[in-house]
Amino acid sequence: MSEYIGHLINGEIHSDKSQTQAVYNPATGAVCANVCMASQETVAMAISSAKQAYPAWRNTPPAMRAQVMYRFKQRLEENQDIICELISREHGKVLSDAKGELARGIENVEFACGIPELLKGEHSRNVGRDIDAWSELQPLGVVAGITPFNFPAMVPLWMWPSAIMCGNTFVLKPSERDPSCVLYIAKLAEEAGLPKGVLNVIHGGADVVNQLIDDDTIQAVSFVGSTPIAETIYKRASEKGKRCQALGGAKNHAVIMPDADLDNVANALMGAAYGSCGQRCMAISVAVAIGDKVADALIDKLKPQVEALKVGPGSDDRNEMGPLITSAQRDKVSQFVAQAIEQGAEVIVDGRELVIAGHESGFFIGGTLFDKVTPDMDIYQQEVFGPVLVVVRVDSLEEAVALINRHEYGNGTCIFTRDGQASRYFSDQVMVGMVGINVPLPVPVSYHSFGGWKRSLFGDLHAYGPDSVRFYTRRKAISQRWPSGEVKDGTLFSFPSL
Amino acid sequence: MSEYIGHLINGEIHSDKSQTQAVYNPATGAVCANVCMASQETVAMAISSAKQAYPAWRNTPPAMRAQVMYRFKQRLEENQDIICELISREHGKVLSDAKGELARGIENVEFACGIPELLKGEHSRNVGRDIDAWSELQPLGVVAGITPFNFPAMVPLWMWPSAIMCGNTFVLKPSERDPSCVLYIAKLAEEAGLPKGVLNVIHGGADVVNQLIDDDTIQAVSFVGSTPIAETIYKRASEKGKRCQALGGAKNHAVIMPDADLDNVANALMGAAYGSCGQRCMAISVAVAIGDKVADALIDKLKPQVEALKVGPGSDDRNEMGPLITSAQRDKVSQFVAQAIEQGAEVIVDGRELVIAGHESGFFIGGTLFDKVTPDMDIYQQEVFGPVLVVVRVDSLEEAVALINRHEYGNGTCIFTRDGQASRYFSDQVMVGMVGINVPLPVPVSYHSFGGWKRSLFGDLHAYGPDSVRFYTRRKAISQRWPSGEVKDGTLFSFPSL
Amino acid sequence: MSEYIGHLINGEIHSDKSQTQAVYNPATGAVCANVCMASQETVAMAISSAKQAYPAWRNTPPAMRAQVMYRFKQRLEENQDIICELISREHGKVLSDAKGELARGIENVEFACGIPELLKGEHSRNVGRDIDAWSELQPLGVVAGITPFNFPAMVPLWMWPSAIMCGNTFVLKPSERDPSCVLYIAKLAEEAGLPKGVLNVIHGGADVVNQLIDDDTIQAVSFVGSTPIAETIYKRASEKGKRCQALGGAKNHAVIMPDADLDNVANALMGAAYGSCGQRCMAISVAVAIGDKVADALIDKLKPQVEALKVGPGSDDRNEMGPLITSAQRDKVSQFVAQAIEQGAEVIVDGRELVIAGHESGFFIGGTLFDKVTPDMDIYQQEVFGPVLVVVRVDSLEEAVALINRHEYGNGTCIFTRDGQASRYFSDQVMVGMVGINVPLPVPVSYHSFGGWKRSLFGDLHAYGPDSVRFYTRRKAISQRWPSGEVKDGTLFSFPSL
Amino acid sequence: MSEYIGHLINGEIHSDKSQTQAVYNPATGAVCANVCMASQETVAMAISSAKQAYPAWRNTPPAMRAQVMYRFKQRLEENQDIICELISREHGKVLSDAKGELARGIENVEFACGIPELLKGEHSRNVGRDIDAWSELQPLGVVAGITPFNFPAMVPLWMWPSAIMCGNTFVLKPSERDPSCVLYIAKLAEEAGLPKGVLNVIHGGADVVNQLIDDDTIQAVSFVGSTPIAETIYKRASEKGKRCQALGGAKNHAVIMPDADLDNVANALMGAAYGSCGQRCMAISVAVAIGDKVADALIDKLKPQVEALKVGPGSDDRNEMGPLITSAQRDKVSQFVAQAIEQGAEVIVDGRELVIAGHESGFFIGGTLFDKVTPDMDIYQQEVFGPVLVVVRVDSLEEAVALINRHEYGNGTCIFTRDGQASRYFSDQVMVGMVGINVPLPVPVSYHSFGGWKRSLFGDLHAYGPDSVRFYTRRKAISQRWPSGEVKDGTLFSFPSL
Repeated sequence: MSEYIGHLINGEIHSDKSQTQAVYNPATGAVCANVCMASQETVAMAISSAKQAYPAWRNTPPAMRAQVMYRFKQRLEENQDIICELISREHGKVLSDAKGELARGIENVEFACGIPELLKGEHSRNVGRDIDAWSELQPLGVVAGITPFNFPAMVPLWMWPSAIMCGNTFVLKPSERDPSCVLYIAKLAEEAGLPKGVLNVIHGGADVVNQLIDDDTIQAVSFVGSTPIAETIYKRASEKGKRCQALGGAKNHAVIMPDADLDNVANALMGAAYGSCGQRCMAISVAVAIGDKVADALIDKLKPQVEALKVGPGSDDRNEMGPLITSAQRDKVSQFVAQAIEQGAEVIVDGRELVIAGHESGFFIGGTLFDKVTPDMDIYQQEVFGPVLVVVRVDSLEEAVALINRHEYGNGTCIFTRDGQASRYFSDQVMVGMVGINVPLPVPVSYHSFGGWKRSLFGDLHAYGPDSVRFYTRRKAISQRWPSGEVKDGTLFSFPSL
Repeated sequence: MSEYIGHLINGEIHSDKSQTQAVYNPATGAVCANVCMASQETVAMAISSAKQAYPAWRNTPPAMRAQVMYRFKQRLEENQDIICELISREHGKVLSDAKGELARGIENVEFACGIPELLKGEHSRNVGRDIDAWSELQPLGVVAGITPFNFPAMVPLWMWPSAIMCGNTFVLKPSERDPSCVLYIAKLAEEAGLPKGVLNVIHGGADVVNQLIDDDTIQAVSFVGSTPIAETIYKRASEKGKRCQALGGAKNHAVIMPDADLDNVANALMGAAYGSCGQRCMAISVAVAIGDKVADALIDKLKPQVEALKVGPGSDDRNEMGPLITSAQRDKVSQFVAQAIEQGAEVIVDGRELVIAGHESGFFIGGTLFDKVTPDMDIYQQEVFGPVLVVVRVDSLEEAVALINRHEYGNGTCIFTRDGQASRYFSDQVMVGMVGINVPLPVPVSYHSFGGWKRSLFGDLHAYGPDSVRFYTRRKAISQRWPSGEVKDGTLFSFPSL
Repeated sequence: MSEYIGHLINGEIHSDKSQTQAVYNPATGAVCANVCMASQETVAMAISSAKQAYPAWRNTPPAMRAQVMYRFKQRLEENQDIICELISREHGKVLSDAKGELARGIENVEFACGIPELLKGEHSRNVGRDIDAWSELQPLGVVAGITPFNFPAMVPLWMWPSAIMCGNTFVLKPSERDPSCVLYIAKLAEEAGLPKGVLNVIHGGADVVNQLIDDDTIQAVSFVGSTPIAETIYKRASEKGKRCQALGGAKNHAVIMPDADLDNVANALMGAAYGSCGQRCMAISVAVAIGDKVADALIDKLKPQVEALKVGPGSDDRNEMGPLITSAQRDKVSQFVAQAIEQGAEVIVDGRELVIAGHESGFFIGGTLFDKVTPDMDIYQQEVFGPVLVVVRVDSLEEAVALINRHEYGNGTCIFTRDGQASRYFSDQVMVGMVGINVPLPVPVSYHSFGGWKRSLFGDLHAYGPDSVRFYTRRKAISQRWPSGEVKDGTLFSFPSL
Repeated sequence: MSEYIGHLINGEIHSDKSQTQAVYNPATGAVCANVCMASQETVAMAISSAKQAYPAWRNTPPAMRAQVMYRFKQRLEENQDIICELISREHGKVLSDAKGELARGIENVEFACGIPELLKGEHSRNVGRDIDAWSELQPLGVVAGITPFNFPAMVPLWMWPSAIMCGNTFVLKPSERDPSCVLYIAKLAEEAGLPKGVLNVIHGGADVVNQLIDDDTIQAVSFVGSTPIAETIYKRASEKGKRCQALGGAKNHAVIMPDADLDNVANALMGAAYGSCGQRCMAISVAVAIGDKVADALIDKLKPQVEALKVGPGSDDRNEMGPLITSAQRDKVSQFVAQAIEQGAEVIVDGRELVIAGHESGFFIGGTLFDKVTPDMDIYQQEVFGPVLVVVRVDSLEEAVALINRHEYGNGTCIFTRDGQASRYFSDQVMVGMVGINVPLPVPVSYHSFGGWKRSLFGDLHAYGPDSVRFYTRRKAISQRWPSGEVKDGTLFSFPSL
């Protein structure tokens, strides 16, 4: 009865139903579709499709490749309502949030439009007498991307537009939890003129991922997800001698300085902690208050707001927060909360008992707020990926930075202050890849790159932006000298230098 | 009686003689020194020294760090004769070749002098209303380099000057075959003002390498050597979740087009194939002649030159070629030659019987030339790392490129031609990282980067030049917004976009 | 009866008919419209409109400004037929040529879309201890552009999209000969969301130009046209202390080497010399043959092709060449031809007597070919801007380069050869801004910049591409240090250094 | 009896004494040397020397040119005491100040060492099918620099090292007030290996300047000095169709916010206002206090410090401030002070009566401080170039910015605050080229560029740093396509596009 979601291979939807998996509407708990899980043959077919599309696409001038991106941007904008509904239906996030996500994804398409500028190599006349040298950034071949459920539209757009603009062809394995919008978007790309086979989409689980990584045709692997899987993928790709960038989890701290405007801070934290039900790798999950006075006042301001959170189905845009992605995830978050209470955290708002009338089977949980959380508690150490904000109290900025630097993750962080010196000390010393100064979710714009430090990212190059061009290309260095007819060259046995 | 070569840790020579290994003069076969092999404690001490030196060095302004490099360049130039003698004595290469090597190493020091320019991040005003963003390239911490015997001065200079100019501190493990010059150079760096502990040098074998890779303090690993070890190191470092660049072996083809001036080609090949006794990862070991006419004429020109090669101790600058690094390597090269003959290659010059009067115990072998080698022979498939040049005959440029692209290695290559179109086809299509157009050894100058393709390099960023700055730094993206006192910010639950 | 073409000021068409001038259809010689010539008040109004639009536009984030460009590109593509008809009707060029022009103009719009990337400043942490520095490229304010008749769509698009993306507002004075398409295009920009007043278009002659240059509000002047006017404008703007880039005339030489394929060369020269009736500042007007053999063969190939040129109204796409822009220009070209014959040039094809049936009043002239032209002749020294190609014979490439370098202009040039060395010598030594190697019209793509040398360009920054961003912005250098509360700073009377 | 200071032409000192001018020791008022003023023939000889040196220098690989700069830096450092004595003797500044000046000049030499990196052009493979394009930054030829008395060592080093590293040759006309150190420095460059004729130094006045500007060989003119002369030079060079950058005067405001630490501010202002006797184009001459409370407190702190200033000969390093450059300048400053009092400014400290025992004939004047200066007073509007600081009182930051933006100059400025928002508002809105945030003299480091806005700079490119490379080079754009033998190209009459 429900729809079957197939793979996109060589421009065709390929629906082998040998193995399928239910896709849920998290707001109702109902199955809304079934997604085909790729067999080994299907994966091989997708890779082969990308391989065959490669030579012609590689040789298409970058400025011509960019024309596809311009039209693609336009089609994304024209169809944003449909895309956002697909996002909200399968992921659960509220529509306005889906729109925010899509807008950031479109930014990445815009960045990819600029590929003729971004692919420029460096040219040096006369590196030696009559010798010129230059570099080119040539495509790798077929590359793969594996993306998470929490940004089903945006994260794939971090990867493949940049990758294919560099001249590669792509096999994308999006999350099997909310696969519809990525397929829809891929079709828009084809309508925009993307040749068949340049972008292929397949669904599946760990087996599919492993097959992608192991296949000799795949030249590079980009991953975004949790840290344990990121690490596994990084090791496996490296074991195959491949380049890999694998982005993992986070525990993002916001530091609140005594000079910060606490009304602003509370408002900012509400969005950053509870938006998208906390299922963002850039969500703020720890508020580090400098001094008890700040902490007390902050709790006073946050408590009524958390209690007043409008939770409900994402399709109703009056809601501020939707459900979690699965019932399993809801249970896991509940256990985190219970454990935290057990370990001595002071619960200020407990969202576990929330029931949404008419959506009793939805995977909802209410916003939860803890005070006096300490670094030894599980709820501090681990990524909860739910609507839980914990307040940790420290005495100084130095102590806050040391705390953050001791955490295993280093994805995002933020400081609230008016003070230039505090912000400079913080941004210089904190061992975190993305830093906000009064910016609660410091996701870099598309023309800067995204990446965490420590165990939040494996690899050396960050996602999207300038780094992505370097990741998706191989440098070729060319040295050129033209012989002059008259002069005969002698033999140089020694190593050549100026 | 012979000297003991110790480790450089925190500015002091540390000579634990618990385990030592002989260092030979390859021209005489005699032991000229003993090198201390680091114990586990010694390695730990070196890492600890680097770790302690890190905070102060990281916070030293790049322009001040650069002052050390300027003085270091000067001291290298003033002491080049001493350095080249050390190189020649332990490696065997002729002095003029050592000078060429050192000159290219000094180039890397010059590149490192430019660090204030190279470390520039990108700044964007108004990424959103009143939001600015910028990126910084911050140092990693303590990083390690592992370098090969064949360029004992140059390859370490590919790594640590760039790494420490980026603000890192360094543990270097050079080849234990010819360790003296690297230690001497490190002392020059200290004389130039490098603070103690910023650069540490330890000697050892696989155990030391593994300890370096496994130690949690080490943030990144750079390696240059053979492909099997490069691959092992890349996997092991990645297994530890670290960034790694590992440069391996090569089988560099030179394509000779019918329009090339064969006198020039022969001269160029003599230097590129037999210089440094073929022990260069950029040496030309395969000459691909387009057509039998070219091949026959080329053989005619090469044969007398190979036979006339002046082979002898590197200390005598009239020699063109010195010995191999070890007797084992000489035996291995001899076996390659024997096997090639057995497999049907036509030997034109056989250098195996060469004896140098007065240096009968030296590790010498004569220049060897093969014709009619085919891709299935071991001598074609494997890296010989000796003075052996093989000629392969093909019918067209297209065939030559296909041949090269099928080889497992893709380090360097070169085409000899006068024709613009041939050179462009070649440089565009060949799957090799460094391409020469009438440049037999297309080692990029220091301000471009060095790296092969396929199994000649594991990792995504190349060695030295612009890529090295990206390899030795972590990108930090900062987004900044200052609150205006009057305006209160509302909560944004949706994902932030323009 | 005919239409009045007004000014675009603050988003409104402003048609003061106090002074007007006829606009001709060059194919028929008939007046097709009348263009309003701006009074002093009108010019002031346009400047004032731009000034008022400036603050809000300056503060709009670049990524939001870029959205206008994306939509503008789309509208240009959707309306390309209308635009090309307007170009062809008033300029005379054939429709396919108008399409080529527009396509290159749209490329500049694409470049402007990339403004968030292009505006990036440079950020340096720790230029001194705890001092950071960065640069910003801030807009200038109101800037002006003055553009020629020969590319009525493209040349304005070289200027204003880049200028306004940098945050400036613009007053454009296009050629009064063919003003319709630029107005139409400006309206498309408004439909794409460009705020009123950001782009203003006024028509007029020298008085209007002078008023624009003299007005204190105008911060910079871009000009493309003939060298005498370019020079006048450069001097006048500089006299007012303003920055100015003024692109002038050309005499573009193509060098034909003996190894060139003459069929290809002849074909290439036909398009480059006679396309757009020779009215391009990048047209080839001098063919420099190396040796008499090349010259004779070239003449043999060109003669029948010139004679067979299909000349007629641009609206008929079977035609290869349309009329000149005015009857005065036709007479001037005729005089050049007569004078050349008088001065001893050998006329191979004389196009002066051409009459197009049904278009007897059109400003047509036939393709003309001269041989044995010498550097002392007027037809060699001056820019003809008509369908006249002259062949000059020299004995060597060195002589050809010396010839080109002696000419007062240095806009474009080209060499036809297969030889790498010849091309390198040529591109290195020739004192010309844009060099083609087997590319007859080496107009740089939009992401490189356009500019001639010698008297073909006054100013230091070239048009469009990267240079245009620097031209349309002012660099601001910011040095920042935050005080630490505890430490008191001493006075530094000496000049601050590291 | 006193020494004659000659010209440096083609590596030789050329001393025609036909016209000479006294050089004074400002601390004693005595003539310490006579400088030869160049005749027309001498100027022509210098230009000719530069012209002849050009071709060989242009063709020297940049990396080899850089070797001269490395050695030159070393020689500057070795001889810094001699240079600083020469500076102090003829200019009057205290030795520690001269050392600061020289250190900043050496930074520019360091920047020039990086020329191989800085000269890189941009390379694009496949701008169209099989067409590649790249840009080169080629040298201009012979260029000229004209430099002021106040930084006799540093400002010339802003210009010629960058210019000659780009491949140009140079004619420098330093100030005839203090010409010795620049000649000494030029000789060090020759000792460092600079070929004869690459750098030439001539002395003279307006006639020499005009001859340099007018000579057709000179391709570009760089100037630093007062605004009236900068403007004249800019117009004259532009009149000759040349590129020119002319840096003029300044009136640099420091804004003191209520949250600033006034002890720090007072200390910072003392150095920035009175260092080098106020003879710096980056000197702070206006302190803008936000609110009367700040103003009163600031005056209280400044008054005793100004009164306590140690004034005396620069050769005694205990002094904080030396004399002015000439007696005429001293009289001019005195008149400014008198006029200000007359116009109603409140004099807090009046330095006019200062007499230095033992140096009664020196050109000394004491530090002077005014309060309650208003924008209509001459002392506010004009550049005094003496040790005079005026305090202006305003009510808000917005008012301060508006005040600064109304001033004719826009060279440097600074804000003292701890507040991030104030600093951002200020740096964004202020129409000044160089902005300090708690940095009183925000002279950009050598790898950023130096330049004012408004009437402080004529031209579009700033001095030194990245802009200087663009100023001293001409962009050449090369488009390359190699013909394929089999395919015949058709004629393209339309404008070429993708």
